[in-house]
Amino acid sequence: MALLDYFLRKKEKQGTTASKAKERLQIIVAHERNNRNKQPDYLPQLTEDILNVLRKYVQVSDKSLSINLDNKGGELNVLELNIELQDENNPD
Amino acid sequence: MALLDYFLRKKEKQGTTASKAKERLQIIVAHERNNRNKQPDYLPQLTEDILNVLRKYVQVSDKSLSINLDNKGGELNVLELNIELQDENNPD
Repeated sequence: MALLDYFLRKKEKQGTTASKAKERLQIIVAHERNNRNKQPDYLPQLTEDILNVLRKYVQVSDKSLSINLDNKGGELNVLELNIELQDENNPD
Repeated sequence: MALLDYFLRKKEKQGTTASKAKERLQIIVAHERNNRNKQPDYLPQLTEDILNVLRKYVQVSDKSLSINLDNKGGELNVLELNIELQDENNPD
């Protein structure tokens, strides 16, 4: 739960800034692999699938999206998606 | 990127323990809402959808899965999924 605690503290700090009005979604997928697994990693495909699923609920434009896929020596792959959601009442 | 840095440091520490052999997936979805949004939150449905997508790639049993959905005062919803993956070469 340490990661989550850190995350929430960070969000609380951000809450005091002007950026509060925007809606945001952040998705982090961490895949910890062992040495025996010789399969290619599926995070790139999974990214696409998660984005398709998200589009059922929210509008995700290329402009609003940032994707970061980080490979740490082959055993830990971390995918980070940041999406700034369009405010339906006040699009700008 | 601060969250990701923290996350990676935590993982590096864990890498030295005996738990290294297991494969794991951790997914965190954080939805930062604004006050104007009166729609019900879609994270519970999104959880189901992400799990269905994951099952295309890995075996996710109820036993291997832990789900935590945290609502922080209605403006920040955080979903945390932890999945212990079955080792196909060495199931136990």
